[in-house]
Amino acid sequence: MEGSLLTPQSSYDPQVCIGHRIINETIQLKLKECLTHIRTQLDNVVDFWLKHSHDTVHGGFFTCLGKDGHVYDEMKYVWLQGRQVWMYCRLYRTMGRFCKPEILEAAKTGGEFLRKNARVLGSSNPWKCAFCLTRDGRAVKVQRSIFSECFYIMAMDELSRVTDDKDLQLEAEQMMEQIIYWVRVDSSGLGRPSLPGDVPTNSMAVPMMLLCLVQQLTEGREEAVTQKYKELGNWCVEQILQHIQRGGTAILENVSVNGEELPGCQGRLQNPGHALEAGWFLLQYSAMWGDDNLQKTAINKFVELPYQNGWDKKHGGLFYFLDVDHHCPTQLEWNMKLWWPHCEALIAFLMAYSQTKKPELLERFYQIYEYTFKHFPDNDSGEWYGYLTQEGKVALDFKGGPFKGMYEVHSSGFYKLRDRVAEIHILKPQNRNKCIE
Amino acid sequence: MEGSLLTPQSSYDPQVCIGHRIINETIQLKLKECLTHIRTQLDNVVDFWLKHSHDTVHGGFFTCLGKDGHVYDEMKYVWLQGRQVWMYCRLYRTMGRFCKPEILEAAKTGGEFLRKNARVLGSSNPWKCAFCLTRDGRAVKVQRSIFSECFYIMAMDELSRVTDDKDLQLEAEQMMEQIIYWVRVDSSGLGRPSLPGDVPTNSMAVPMMLLCLVQQLTEGREEAVTQKYKELGNWCVEQILQHIQRGGTAILENVSVNGEELPGCQGRLQNPGHALEAGWFLLQYSAMWGDDNLQKTAINKFVELPYQNGWDKKHGGLFYFLDVDHHCPTQLEWNMKLWWPHCEALIAFLMAYSQTKKPELLERFYQIYEYTFKHFPDNDSGEWYGYLTQEGKVALDFKGGPFKGMYEVHSSGFYKLRDRVAEIHILKPQNRNKCIE
Repeated sequence: MEGSLLTPQSSYDPQVCIGHRIINETIQLKLKECLTHIRTQLDNVVDFWLKHSHDTVHGGFFTCLGKDGHVYDEMKYVWLQGRQVWMYCRLYRTMGRFCKPEILEAAKTGGEFLRKNARVLGSSNPWKCAFCLTRDGRAVKVQRSIFSECFYIMAMDELSRVTDDKDLQLEAEQMMEQIIYWVRVDSSGLGRPSLPGDVPTNSMAVPMMLLCLVQQLTEGREEAVTQKYKELGNWCVEQILQHIQRGGTAILENVSVNGEELPGCQGRLQNPGHALEAGWFLLQYSAMWGDDNLQKTAINKFVELPYQNGWDKKHGGLFYFLDVDHHCPTQLEWNMKLWWPHCEALIAFLMAYSQTKKPELLERFYQIYEYTFKHFPDNDSGEWYGYLTQEGKVALDFKGGPFKGMYEVHSSGFYKLRDRVAEIHILKPQNRNKCIE
Repeated sequence: MEGSLLTPQSSYDPQVCIGHRIINETIQLKLKECLTHIRTQLDNVVDFWLKHSHDTVHGGFFTCLGKDGHVYDEMKYVWLQGRQVWMYCRLYRTMGRFCKPEILEAAKTGGEFLRKNARVLGSSNPWKCAFCLTRDGRAVKVQRSIFSECFYIMAMDELSRVTDDKDLQLEAEQMMEQIIYWVRVDSSGLGRPSLPGDVPTNSMAVPMMLLCLVQQLTEGREEAVTQKYKELGNWCVEQILQHIQRGGTAILENVSVNGEELPGCQGRLQNPGHALEAGWFLLQYSAMWGDDNLQKTAINKFVELPYQNGWDKKHGGLFYFLDVDHHCPTQLEWNMKLWWPHCEALIAFLMAYSQTKKPELLERFYQIYEYTFKHFPDNDSGEWYGYLTQEGKVALDFKGGPFKGMYEVHSSGFYKLRDRVAEIHILKPQNRNKCIE
């Protein structure tokens, strides 16, 4: 963004310096406005779920909530149960205004429901979790993947932090060992038959999710725990970087285990939301280990690139799926605008700006912010819509569904975002420092 | 449709009689126009697949064909392989202009590819078929359902008819025995784990597909074969009729095995295309056994009702999914307009008209015909688009994909439709006969 009003100058000049101070104050003001708005939205979303989602009879949370919050289906999705427990705990632990007994109580009740019901009884593996449960906790469906287990870990680890229950931490780490075994040693226990044409694949979701878990399990914990997961963290980063393809011009969702492009639709698939999510996971990791090269790659390839390739220049918003060779994707929902890629994009750009202070990253953040807050919130009934048409019209009007719960789901986005805004708010922009000092 | 110009009169009056003759001639003329148009479209579609889909190296058919026919993915979907073999055979066997060596040859080559590759080697059950295969025939994915096997049967039975190969017929019947066992005795061989919350369900697709197979296996065969499948056919009809719910005001896609409504989204789901498809299967069956009550139920409940509940009064076209209580469905594609429900609707209404001569059924046919032929055909590159937005805009522009091949896929629709039109064309309307005689 050459010549932009926001572009920092390297040479010292008192006039420029005053100009920068004004610009930086403007930035701070605008960010403060964003923060205030996000804070309000977060309160609104948390209220919505506190009010409508608690099952006071069987425990756990209803996740299928209609436009006005009514329960339209009683099925309990394990991903979303785990995420909601995580979310309540995280809010309780880190944000003063949510440090209330009812939040802690809700988290504990949700945790108990999960511990009692999520694992599939009589399964050949005691760690395998169901994908969804009946209202009273009986397994309905099991996925042949690792994600129910991942969100179980997220819930247990975060719950162990607010309750100081070491058993929960241990349980999270034990399940983590099982997941590592499935991913890196032998996946046959997941139940997928071994088929001659089924090429082993590095799908973005797997290393990305594991990296998220590494960060969850190690955050603020003693050095031994950090060291225990260090090699895994590096492996995840390496696996994620394999998705940079086409001479660095695209992030592809599925690659071979050797990091080569796969043939056909599967190989050409782009999922901009996932790439952006991986982007901010990498940014967090690079900050943790002070890895400047990784930071640069994360911003160039996993933040800016998915935006460039994934933004709909005609109608605004991020596409859900795209084909790198511009074939039409086979996913019927490819051109829809979903809430979560926009949350990931907001977090990624704000984090990238926070770490680098490059104004073009902030400008991009504002652009995505405007689209997001104009289209997704339901100002009448509260919460957000999750699914828009390409043109930005609400296509599905429920507030919670099989894949849309309280977390990631903007609340988490808000939470993470709010956190980042706060961080930027506290950190003084380098350029301004230079001027003042 | 009281007072309609097309309503037949029961009393004899020479003036009325002349009027009827004119009306009937108008109907015949319009139907003839439809027939001519459908004939052209069928030729166009068959040419498209003959030209673009044949794999001359490994055999079988490419099914992922882009807007202009280019192969954008080499994966071979077993449903679509089976359907294409069936389609070629059926065209060859029953429609003079397709009785050409290249059609027969293509059918045989496709059949060989299926016989060689569809069944999963090393599977615990020798009849289990893959869902998709690599270009050279290695299994990539197996579904835990019966449908790959069903389309395998369709292909083998129809191929046995054009080649007079009794082994193929035997193979089809043997696989049928396996499917019946999975559906009616023990489904554990399909690979789904038995879970305490997973209630056994009567899903429309299963009895509908089995009824279709019964008709395929018995058509024109000796009495012993017909008798062999008679009980199964009746069972299928009974299972389909269980989907009439809410006091006869809705067809629900999933019901309990006792024919009761299931709770939640699954229980409230309507799939108008499936209901209409079941409708004309029932009409065929009622004609075969001369069952007037079944015919009446089929028309009222499985033809007229799904149209009434499923037609988009604002934008036209049939919704893909609806919730009977008007909640928003959780399927992201719920409001899209797909090609196949429209084909099923055309066949269903025309067959219903053909059997009853009720003019309101024909009027409905013309309405659906207009929407369908206005929106789905691609007049530039040939073939049909498969997936439109609610407003009728093309959302996915490929001509073949993982679930859209040559069959059902309008070709079959056209074929079946053409067949019906021809039938109407041959049969003289009862009323006119009365007048003339």
